[in-house]
Amino acid sequence: MSHSKKRPSTRREFLTKGALLATGSLVGLAMPSAQAAPVTVSVPETVSGGRTRFHQVYDVIVVGSGFAGLAAALEAKSHGLDVLVIEKMAVYGGNSTINGGAFAVAGSPLQKEAGIEDSPELMYKDMLKAGRGLNHHDILQVLVNGTQEAYEFTIKHGVRYKPFVQHFGGHSVPRTLQTVESSGAGIVMPLRNSAQKLGVIFKNRCKFDAFIQDDKRRVIGIQAKDDYRFPDENSGSVRNYGARYGVIMCNGGFGNDLRFRQIQDPQLVSDIDTTNHPGATAEGLLAMLGIGATPVQLDLIQLGPWSSPDEKGFGNVSQFNTIAGYPMGIMVDVRTGKRFTNELADRKAREDAILAQRDADGKPVYPVCFTNLEGAKQAQSLPAALKYNVAWQFNTLKELADHFSIPYDGLQKEVDAYNLAVKNGGGDPLGKDVSRAISLAEGPYVAVRVWPKVHYTMGGVQINASGQVLNALNGEPIAGLYAAGEVTGGPHGASRLGSCAIADGLVLGRVAGAHAATQTATPLFDLNA
Amino acid sequence: MSHSKKRPSTRREFLTKGALLATGSLVGLAMPSAQAAPVTVSVPETVSGGRTRFHQVYDVIVVGSGFAGLAAALEAKSHGLDVLVIEKMAVYGGNSTINGGAFAVAGSPLQKEAGIEDSPELMYKDMLKAGRGLNHHDILQVLVNGTQEAYEFTIKHGVRYKPFVQHFGGHSVPRTLQTVESSGAGIVMPLRNSAQKLGVIFKNRCKFDAFIQDDKRRVIGIQAKDDYRFPDENSGSVRNYGARYGVIMCNGGFGNDLRFRQIQDPQLVSDIDTTNHPGATAEGLLAMLGIGATPVQLDLIQLGPWSSPDEKGFGNVSQFNTIAGYPMGIMVDVRTGKRFTNELADRKAREDAILAQRDADGKPVYPVCFTNLEGAKQAQSLPAALKYNVAWQFNTLKELADHFSIPYDGLQKEVDAYNLAVKNGGGDPLGKDVSRAISLAEGPYVAVRVWPKVHYTMGGVQINASGQVLNALNGEPIAGLYAAGEVTGGPHGASRLGSCAIADGLVLGRVAGAHAATQTATPLFDLNA
Repeated sequence: MSHSKKRPSTRREFLTKGALLATGSLVGLAMPSAQAAPVTVSVPETVSGGRTRFHQVYDVIVVGSGFAGLAAALEAKSHGLDVLVIEKMAVYGGNSTINGGAFAVAGSPLQKEAGIEDSPELMYKDMLKAGRGLNHHDILQVLVNGTQEAYEFTIKHGVRYKPFVQHFGGHSVPRTLQTVESSGAGIVMPLRNSAQKLGVIFKNRCKFDAFIQDDKRRVIGIQAKDDYRFPDENSGSVRNYGARYGVIMCNGGFGNDLRFRQIQDPQLVSDIDTTNHPGATAEGLLAMLGIGATPVQLDLIQLGPWSSPDEKGFGNVSQFNTIAGYPMGIMVDVRTGKRFTNELADRKAREDAILAQRDADGKPVYPVCFTNLEGAKQAQSLPAALKYNVAWQFNTLKELADHFSIPYDGLQKEVDAYNLAVKNGGGDPLGKDVSRAISLAEGPYVAVRVWPKVHYTMGGVQINASGQVLNALNGEPIAGLYAAGEVTGGPHGASRLGSCAIADGLVLGRVAGAHAATQTATPLFDLNA
Repeated sequence: MSHSKKRPSTRREFLTKGALLATGSLVGLAMPSAQAAPVTVSVPETVSGGRTRFHQVYDVIVVGSGFAGLAAALEAKSHGLDVLVIEKMAVYGGNSTINGGAFAVAGSPLQKEAGIEDSPELMYKDMLKAGRGLNHHDILQVLVNGTQEAYEFTIKHGVRYKPFVQHFGGHSVPRTLQTVESSGAGIVMPLRNSAQKLGVIFKNRCKFDAFIQDDKRRVIGIQAKDDYRFPDENSGSVRNYGARYGVIMCNGGFGNDLRFRQIQDPQLVSDIDTTNHPGATAEGLLAMLGIGATPVQLDLIQLGPWSSPDEKGFGNVSQFNTIAGYPMGIMVDVRTGKRFTNELADRKAREDAILAQRDADGKPVYPVCFTNLEGAKQAQSLPAALKYNVAWQFNTLKELADHFSIPYDGLQKEVDAYNLAVKNGGGDPLGKDVSRAISLAEGPYVAVRVWPKVHYTMGGVQINASGQVLNALNGEPIAGLYAAGEVTGGPHGASRLGSCAIADGLVLGRVAGAHAATQTATPLFDLNA
């Protein structure tokens, strides 16, 4: 089908005309104020039975305001549709705002400048390997094919990146761009500003509760709570919002949903910390399953292999290790001073290796990761990490060893062996790519302790290559229902590679937004009927 | 609550009285003939909307006639309830009938006779280890606590076991009983005969299609197709059957559902064989998810580590390896003659080790497992395996090596090392318990080739310790809905140990049947109302 723009009769047009139409199935039309008369459309709904009264009708409703949600909203808007984005928290962006702002792009201009050969095919191969073959091939293909365009999309909307590419664990070449802010907020804020300027309507503290379906089980809107105060389920006012071209669920993962994550992995008890924001819960996912969506690999839950037991959440150490500690340093078992994993292996390999560091009683023995000050300075979080005493500086290796009670001889031997590999530009015993690494012969050193935290839920609902959510019983799309980003399952398989979440959210969010706007021949219901 | 028997007004009583009652919400009552007037109960249903007309009403409907279904039916019947068991295939028992009849019992009389110390606690520990900690603790506890009673239950209903216990992979002691038939049919047939004698009603070629729910979303019956001819979805006549005390889903796993298993694990493409019967598909599971059941670990799919690429399905080799090849012999890499896994490790460890046996192009290099004739004769499937050319007999190790192009020197060396461990009663380099193994110094030998097949789906719907299916949104039981056996998820975690499927089905089936009969204070709807 063509991508020609449609201009269906939208809320915006009605408002422009100031018209109140009441013909056929349409009883009233809301004005954009709290006192507006609700729209009523003659379709049964599932949430309360009977005739649906919509308080407001849009073309597209996007649930969630992270990478996927903003990309979907901008794309739908660019096709001329009226878009509402709802966010249940007070702050927009969810996990996207607190993420590290690292974005894997296969074939970026910066790679070309640096002479790094890359391709969607190579990125596909890397992600399939990390995913242990469990990846859904169709979605993965869409993802890797779309990173270059998604990168240009962010540039167009004002995102700024550091002028170099980075080499993240599990990627076979350096392909990770990073916002100048070293944060996903560096993408969320410009995209949201841009969307607002273009007329996308945003509502924070608005919580999705349930889908509204017509008698053909098509999703034609949502029930939500306005003025919701997370996590108070008794707060807010119930509202029905209509969506003439569909609902796009970009509501993120469930890493902070203690109940549901333990059903999938009973080991993820409450005293295992998470990098996720408090609103990363499962209700949106479960609502989709409740209307027939296909669950995919819900128990595949990633623990970030770079976080610190000395601070809560993502903290300062996660970024330190990703940017500095792992590429520019080494991680050792404090009982021996020996390394035990390739610090640039994919996340699952590192996660499994770190989680195996336990004493005879099964209690964690936190490994220590360190680099020298030259390497450490590459991480923008270094000053904060030192200030909050979650990273420590030492003049000599001996001081470092003594501080953590690491056998000094073992540590020195390990550092010597590593330095030799760095000097030779290869031949690391653990297979690490040391071509861009630095020698650890000279201090001062900066060290942190490491223990994984729940970071990303690879599983979710199944979508097709157009972002449509698929019905479990027959594999057909559920009309009017789209999803993108962490709430979907499949693209990452058993383990997501670092910097592929932004790629996923932006690429698949754009796909869903564009499909909702252009591939639907007619609205799900018509205000002019 | 007490286990006191209730005698609600049941279909049977009505039939006995020959009465046709039509009071309140009850409009008519079916006579047991094709021309019977349908029962109508004034509750809305989800399958077609409006007023439900039941063609027949029972107290309990059990979907599926394997271990779990028969145990549930017998238990409900023993509490005085009217029970219907439906089976979509022509043959009763599903996978249970073609399974090997091996049943793990913690603390059986045969263990005591043999001086083997065992306990539910030890079985719990073994299953948790095999499950990689992903097991649902509450269900696992119920399972291990119930094997002894479930064993007595089978004895009471006429099941006969071989007079010795076996040591299956991953179990820390010999605790596996086996039917004299070496087949699950040795349990299915006596249990079904017993149930029929007690008045349980059986319908084969009756396919479950959907749940019927009342306006409170309680499950009060099913829509099914009578005279269904698998897999023809256009065959059969649609019928509504009411269930006054609930529906118990014992419809098995989805190992033979090519579409759904690939959604969970895209590696399980159609040319990977399965040990499952053709009816092992996902529709019953999906119907439960469709009314809000909680999906658990659906991507954890076990490949049986003992099957043969030289025959279809479970075949004769699976039993040969389980009973003879693995405990009494060794398995080697044909390229070196070397062993590569403890042949009595848990299934996942063996599965992973075998699946790693590939050439540079990723193509399988089938390992060879062999024992001597003395060991081989322990497997009842030996004559058939030899007859159908899926096992081969050799006079000498040299002949065996030459047949499979195994380097003879490497093989001889490996056999010598193994024999030494057997002679010493321990010290096997791969950690195998050789205390009951036999020396392979003397031929003749019997050998088979090995490659895993899809065998068991560990995932399914979440249940509580009473067998009630739990709602994903809030964790509360879905009124009127029970499940047991392979369609449930959680008890086995990442990997089911051999001989724990019968334990699971029988124990949890009995739990569900008893709960439906005794814990429901009042019927879901009342024929006398």
